[in-house]
Formats: sequence, C-alpha cells, structure tokens
Amino acid sequence: MRAAVYHGERDVRVEDVERPEIEDPGDALVRVTHTAVCGSDLWPYRGQSDRDTPSRIGHEPMGIVEEVGEDVRSVQPGDRVFAPFVVSCGECEFCRRGLHTSCVNGDGWGGDNGGAQGEYVRAPHADGTLVRIPDRYADDEDSLQAALPLTDVMGTGHHAAVSAGVAAGDTCVVVGDGAVGLCGVLAARRLGASRIIAVGHHADRLDIAEEFGATETVLEGDGGVDDAAEHVADITGGGAEHVLECVGAAGAMETAVGAARPGGTVGYVGVPHGMGDGLDLFPFFGDNVTLSGGIAPVRAYADELLADVLGGTLDPSPIFTKTVSLDDIADGYRAMDEREAIKVLVKP
Amino acid sequence: MRAAVYHGERDVRVEDVERPEIEDPGDALVRVTHTAVCGSDLWPYRGQSDRDTPSRIGHEPMGIVEEVGEDVRSVQPGDRVFAPFVVSCGECEFCRRGLHTSCVNGDGWGGDNGGAQGEYVRAPHADGTLVRIPDRYADDEDSLQAALPLTDVMGTGHHAAVSAGVAAGDTCVVVGDGAVGLCGVLAARRLGASRIIAVGHHADRLDIAEEFGATETVLEGDGGVDDAAEHVADITGGGAEHVLECVGAAGAMETAVGAARPGGTVGYVGVPHGMGDGLDLFPFFGDNVTLSGGIAPVRAYADELLADVLGGTLDPSPIFTKTVSLDDIADGYRAMDEREAIKVLVKP
Repeated sequence: MRAAVYHGERDVRVEDVERPEIEDPGDALVRVTHTAVCGSDLWPYRGQSDRDTPSRIGHEPMGIVEEVGEDVRSVQPGDRVFAPFVVSCGECEFCRRGLHTSCVNGDGWGGDNGGAQGEYVRAPHADGTLVRIPDRYADDEDSLQAALPLTDVMGTGHHAAVSAGVAAGDTCVVVGDGAVGLCGVLAARRLGASRIIAVGHHADRLDIAEEFGATETVLEGDGGVDDAAEHVADITGGGAEHVLECVGAAGAMETAVGAARPGGTVGYVGVPHGMGDGLDLFPFFGDNVTLSGGIAPVRAYADELLADVLGGTLDPSPIFTKTVSLDDIADGYRAMDEREAIKVLVKP
Repeated sequence: MRAAVYHGERDVRVEDVERPEIEDPGDALVRVTHTAVCGSDLWPYRGQSDRDTPSRIGHEPMGIVEEVGEDVRSVQPGDRVFAPFVVSCGECEFCRRGLHTSCVNGDGWGGDNGGAQGEYVRAPHADGTLVRIPDRYADDEDSLQAALPLTDVMGTGHHAAVSAGVAAGDTCVVVGDGAVGLCGVLAARRLGASRIIAVGHHADRLDIAEEFGATETVLEGDGGVDDAAEHVADITGGGAEHVLECVGAAGAMETAVGAARPGGTVGYVGVPHGMGDGLDLFPFFGDNVTLSGGIAPVRAYADELLADVLGGTLDPSPIFTKTVSLDDIADGYRAMDEREAIKVLVKP
C-alpha cells in the first residue's frame, strides 16, 4: 500500500510499504478515506523535534473498517469510523474517567500499527479506540469533513475550554489562531461563553475566529497591538477568568497568564515548546492563576462532539483550507509550513 | 521603639526606630505582643533574595490595638488582634471573593507601616486587615500561640490543601516538612483526608507530621528512600489525586508532580525559587496534572481557622520549637538558618 514516510527535515515522501494486518483479537484494520496534517507533524518536518528516519507519520485517521479481530464488538467491516490521535482501551481506570491519553494500554500511531497518513491503519483496542459514524451520515462528505477534526484539533480546543472552566455566560480569551485556537473558539461558544476574545497574529485567521463565534479579536504584531495581554487586560478591566492557551509556545503562555484575571484559570493544550528551560511560574503564583489541561483526551469528548457535528450545530471543517491527495501530501506539508493553509485535509 | 532591622546577609539587628503613627482614618496602631520569623525571611538573610538595606522586616504580627483612626469600626483600643502577611481592604472585588493577596489596595509589611518584628506596627485598612480574637481568649497564651500561625503558615498550608482539592476521604501527599508542610498536614486532616502521606528530609519533623495527622511518612535522602515520588507512586498504585507542594523549590515541584496521579492536582504555595529559568511543564502536560495555588490569601481563611483553633480542634503551635525575645531575634534567625528550629516565636 501507499503511505507517507518521514525521511528528515522537509522530506516527507509517499512510498510503497507493507499493509498492516490484524495482529490481536481486539484489532481492526481500517482503510483510510480521510486524514490530515497536524501542526505537531510540522515540528519534525521543520527539524524542531526528533523523529526516527524513516518513519511512518500521521495520527488523524478516518475510514472504513476492512476487517476486525474476533474480540471486536463495536464495529464491523463496512462501518465508517475515526480514531483520536492516541489508541486507548476504553476499559482501564483512566479511560473510565475520561483521561484516555493516560490509558494504561495506550499507544500512538506511526509504529507497527502504521501512521494515519497512509491507505490503511491497524487500530489496536478497536472497541476503545474507534468512534463509529452512524450509517445515515457515513457517506455524507460534509458530515465526514466536519467530523474529521474530532480526531485531534476539535477535541483539543474543547479540552482547552473545559480545562479553563468555561461555562455559560463567561468571558474568555482564546490565545492562538491556528486550527486548535479556532476550534477553541467553537468550543467556548458551544459551552455558552458570552464574550470570546480571540488573540492571534493573522488577520485572515481571526476572521474565521469571528465566523466561529469570537465576539472580539485582537491582532498582535504588524497592523495590530504591541502587547495582546495588556490590551485584553484593558478591555476586560483586569483580565478574563478563563483563558485558553492553544499554542504551547513560551510567548503564548506569557500572553495567556497576562490576560488572566487574578484567581482565573489558563487551560493549556499545546505541547510545550520553545520555553527554554521551563515555564516562568511567578505570574501564575502572584495572581493565583491555575494552570490546567495537558494532552487532550480527545476520545473522551468524541461522542458528545460528534452528536453536535451530525446535528449540524458544530462545524469545524472551515479549518481545512486545502485538500490534497495522499500522493500530493508533500505539497500539503509545504502549504502548512509556509502558513498558506491552516490545516490540510488528505484523501488517500 | 525597638525593632528588627535587616542590614544584609546574616545581619539582622534590633535598633531604636521611629514608632509608627496613625496616618489614615482607616489605620490602627498595634502594639506587637507575638510575632515570628518566617522561612521567607531567611531568603534575604541567606543572601538568596534582594532586599533594601537597611530595612524593617517581619510580616506576622499579633498584638493589642493601641489606637485607631476615626473610620475604623471592627476593632478598638485594647483588642487582641493579628494580621495576615499582607494588608487587604476587605472591600474590593478580590477581597470579596477571598483572594485578599490580589487586593487592589493591598500592601506588604516592612515599608512605612513598619515590619512586624518590632514593638509596634501600623495596620492600614484595619477593618479589612486585622482579625480580632474574642475577649474570652484574648489573654490565653496557649490560644494565642495556636492562633499566631494563622498570620501566615497555617493559612498557607490550608491554601495548599484547598488548591489541591483535598476533601473528605481523599488520599493526599504533602511535600515538605517545614512549617508550611506541617500545617498542610493539619489542613488535610481537618478537611477529612483519610490517607495523608508526608514527604520530607528530616526524621524529627516527620515525627511532628505524624502527630499532626499524617498516616504515613516518607523520608527522602539519608536513611530514607532515594526517590520519594517513585516511592509514593509505589505505595499508592500510581500516585495520589491531591498533592500539596509546600516548599517552592524545583526538586519539591518535581517530587510533587511525580507523586501525582494522572488527572490529579498539585496545590502549590511556596514562592518559586531555585527553578533556574522555570518549571519543566512536560510532566504536568503528559499526565494532565493541574497546577493550582499561589501566594496564599490567608485573610480569607482566618475566621474559619480561628474558630477551630479557639474551639481546640486545631493547634499548629508545635511548629514553634523555639521562643526568643525581640532583643534576641538574631539568635532566632540563626536557629532557623541552621535548621535547629522549625519556626521561631518572637515576643517583643
């Protein structure tokens, strides 16, 4: 089969690789119909993080079940399914409490189960890992494209909002105008926030934030304000109770805590990077700002978010500003690297 | 009047200084009868933090009201009172929601109101700042010594427990066997924790932790375990939901997050120090461990804790392992610096 293979900085190639097979009775084999390039795929692509070469890549699979192991009960061949960016058993202590990213049987994609940017993946613990799309929507392209972000960025933006404690009537700030930040805006609106201030560096992306429900936008840098945190503090009379940090970089965290009201909460979901030796804790300490969140247990939110996607009240698909075939995935990486695309949909 | 004056590293002298006076209608003048040396006083004493020289020092005053400004309603001359380590108005947004350390009219001790390690202090915003001890207990030395830690360390330990989310029946870990850690044990017991694991480096202090309600103690280092976090993870089957970080140093924070269960919370109250450029966020991120707390709004907890102190169910006074007169305060600093005393009571 064909699959994307990472060979080093700015070198992703589509090659013939061995097709994965059912190995355990709990496995399912999925023929991938939709997948995506993630902001976190760009780190090794840009040489900002280590990754084995060559190695399979991609972690946002959606497709049709081709074959299942004998213990699988929740899906069967022909079902349309998607999977979050980590494998989870659904049965351990952490899965039961909604922290699937700490699953004791968990795993990522890209090892012997295959990366999601390929024609097939093997889904271990299929009953825990896979989310089935009801037949009625299983071939509706609009529904599928709206559901695909539930594999990662929509669940991650939602986790930021949940971690920040956003509830009906709240004022909140979303730091970051990438795919996760935009999904954070959707999540905050969905949770009932009445004032949503989106902070970013790109006017065109902040336009999408407004379409997604931001009531105000703050452009930082060229053509905008010098200090977004200061500006947010000004317009909120001292900061917001709930701040979603959707970037993971030191500057974004600084903006987030600066935009937080004393006693407030920063919900963070971006993998920490570019922080040098660590996070400056003093601004959190002095104002008793709670730092909550972490790697998003996307599986925990999938059913609830899918219901809204299929019901037509939640649609993150505008984050896909470019679609490529699997053979053209290198162009997708390039477009995201050059910020020409927010997020790239890939169709194997 | 006589007062302690900081002159630089390991140089605290008692000198004749000007007695403070009522300056604003909301002020009270308090004759200090009891005060203490704080772990945080040791940082400038050890040259680990900057402080003006010469400058007045001390922030844990208890005494008798000598005189009040014309707007003061809650105390009158002759009343026994104490004050938390920061001044707070009691009326602003943050005081009303129990975050007195973010009071918009707040201040510390040691400026023109005088340090608490002296014969008199001027208490600004007396109605907000001062806590009155009912007359019935106002001259009972045992009650006063048990109440004195409410100026700082007992409220701080309580804040760690509250921030960590400790509730009835919980398992929690207290990292640190100094005065704040020991008070954290008392607070966790008071909140109903059923399993309290105290972690420290001093066998004698861990003995006090047991007296205070720790159900288990973990001695790290000489004569104890090499890695307290690993040991806690072992005996709890993967970590505790609630961890009180009562030190503020990098190593303690590392122990705290290592002892936390995925999805758990670290409540921290120690002023961050010795962390180099910052906190390593990865262990928090990967396990979705929340970091909550900060500088403790001790005033918010004073009434509730005082009720228990006076009712006889809460007694942190065993942390005072040495008492000195004001004239001998330099010996008190020395004893704490050399870890001969846990905390020193000072009687001006």
